[in-house]
Amino acid sequence: MTVALASWGSFHVGGRPFEISGKPVREVTLSPGGMPVRIDPNGTYLAGAMYAQYMIPAERRGRFPLLFWHGGGLTGACFETTPGGREGWQNFFLRRGWATYVSDAVERGRSGFSIFPDIFPGEPPFTPLENPWQRFRVGDGHYDNAAPLPGNLLPADHWLDFVRQVVPHFTATDDFILDAYLALLDRVGPSILLVHSQAGFFGWRAAEERPALVKALILLEPAATGEPAKINVLTSIPQLVLYGDYIEQDPRWPAIRARGVAFAEEIRAAGGFIDIIDLPERGMRGNSHMIMMDRNSDEVAALIHSWLVARYLWA
Amino acid sequence: MTVALASWGSFHVGGRPFEISGKPVREVTLSPGGMPVRIDPNGTYLAGAMYAQYMIPAERRGRFPLLFWHGGGLTGACFETTPGGREGWQNFFLRRGWATYVSDAVERGRSGFSIFPDIFPGEPPFTPLENPWQRFRVGDGHYDNAAPLPGNLLPADHWLDFVRQVVPHFTATDDFILDAYLALLDRVGPSILLVHSQAGFFGWRAAEERPALVKALILLEPAATGEPAKINVLTSIPQLVLYGDYIEQDPRWPAIRARGVAFAEEIRAAGGFIDIIDLPERGMRGNSHMIMMDRNSDEVAALIHSWLVARYLWA
Repeated sequence: MTVALASWGSFHVGGRPFEISGKPVREVTLSPGGMPVRIDPNGTYLAGAMYAQYMIPAERRGRFPLLFWHGGGLTGACFETTPGGREGWQNFFLRRGWATYVSDAVERGRSGFSIFPDIFPGEPPFTPLENPWQRFRVGDGHYDNAAPLPGNLLPADHWLDFVRQVVPHFTATDDFILDAYLALLDRVGPSILLVHSQAGFFGWRAAEERPALVKALILLEPAATGEPAKINVLTSIPQLVLYGDYIEQDPRWPAIRARGVAFAEEIRAAGGFIDIIDLPERGMRGNSHMIMMDRNSDEVAALIHSWLVARYLWA
Repeated sequence: MTVALASWGSFHVGGRPFEISGKPVREVTLSPGGMPVRIDPNGTYLAGAMYAQYMIPAERRGRFPLLFWHGGGLTGACFETTPGGREGWQNFFLRRGWATYVSDAVERGRSGFSIFPDIFPGEPPFTPLENPWQRFRVGDGHYDNAAPLPGNLLPADHWLDFVRQVVPHFTATDDFILDAYLALLDRVGPSILLVHSQAGFFGWRAAEERPALVKALILLEPAATGEPAKINVLTSIPQLVLYGDYIEQDPRWPAIRARGVAFAEEIRAAGGFIDIIDLPERGMRGNSHMIMMDRNSDEVAALIHSWLVARYLWA
């Protein structure tokens, strides 16, 4: 079925100037067979800008734009497709009349990274392709010689489709990333955030800093929480927290989930409205950490969409 | 004006396995405030995959998809918007019924980079924000204290919009990049290539390797040429080479242009059809190296579109 777009495009937001000095000048050939060029790495850098792409449907039904914030080691691409090529969540929500904004966190994807360790501290860790197989609750052993967890819904036969999406990410760039998300909110205006994993932190923190601009917050397996001292600000924002399957048997996820749930309970105790859904308790079994890529991704998206409809955010 | 999409989405193609061994295991906290995770960097990597995003219009008029291959230090985003926010070339051609594919070259943007120097040789050079000001023929001196070249059409008042798009790129990854572009062609099938700067090399080389899949080749200021020994293969492909303004006064561009023109003349001498247009000779003055971002970008796009129409590639 076709979808008519009123507008579409991309932009970068944010970034801060940094001065670099004392580094040697180099002669570099930037293009294969190209002319050598003298590169002086000293000067001013604009670091910490962030890329976002928007698609605005002609028949708009969502009351606010829906902003997709990906997790660690990934880019916005994780919302655009699923392993094997079935449509991703960006398609699902755009087809239902939501204006969508898919961004790449600072230092990942089209946001670009900057000189390190001078501006971006440390260096990015690199993970071999079997690493997320276990960490994202798809399977136990090496992806090559172990079967997926029983009933797991990540398309394991298309594992390499997923691995091709994985990018390195720096680990001490939180301030850059949060600043860029705030710049995005300031530019787009009142929005609904759909955040995953590492971006759980940024979703809660951004809502604490810009409560008037966050009209709802959907957190998929948030890996970290907001600032407890600012929890009262969050009570005016409808929130939904979702968790997938296989959490109890994982070495890390019971603690991660417990911390997220405890933070949610604090928001509730302070008078906030926050729903916590463990998908297996709704009869949805087999979800990995990459819920938006699992075979039932449309079903989970429909649950999120219904939750937004029930909050009068879709007309 | 709205545009109806028949389909849209993204995928990654290509990549090769590499084994890494002998590196120390590290404890890393991947998310702010997250649970530490043990990262063993040893194992198999899939390096050299490439991201591409497609939009297929419901009313398709281009006979083949149009593939946009960006230049060095940039990502596919350079075709999506212009400094200041006016629509980019992807919009222009999609609005005229072309199926568009915008990709990020290997190790840039959503394609991701891999462990270096083990897999990707060397390290990426970083350039301060004034660097492309001169190198891309926008102005003479430092962007902050020198006026743009007289009549220059890159929106200098939105220079930082452009700088935010610049990403580091590795300089010895040609084989990876060419392989990924070939994988893209093999997946998409017969296509028209629109390539810029560094991708001039990849456009000509890809056409030499997959002549049946390249139905036309548009080269914007190609920074390097194809393989002279394979030039006969290129004679069956209609080609258009475009150059902007300020070339004579630049320290590098007269030689780069001369080399491109000489290669084009060889193709012509071998019996090929190749048009070379210096935009100033067509009355279009003021184009920087970033022609798709200059204020007259729609005018240049219209010239390219007309050239394709004249070759019966649009119905």
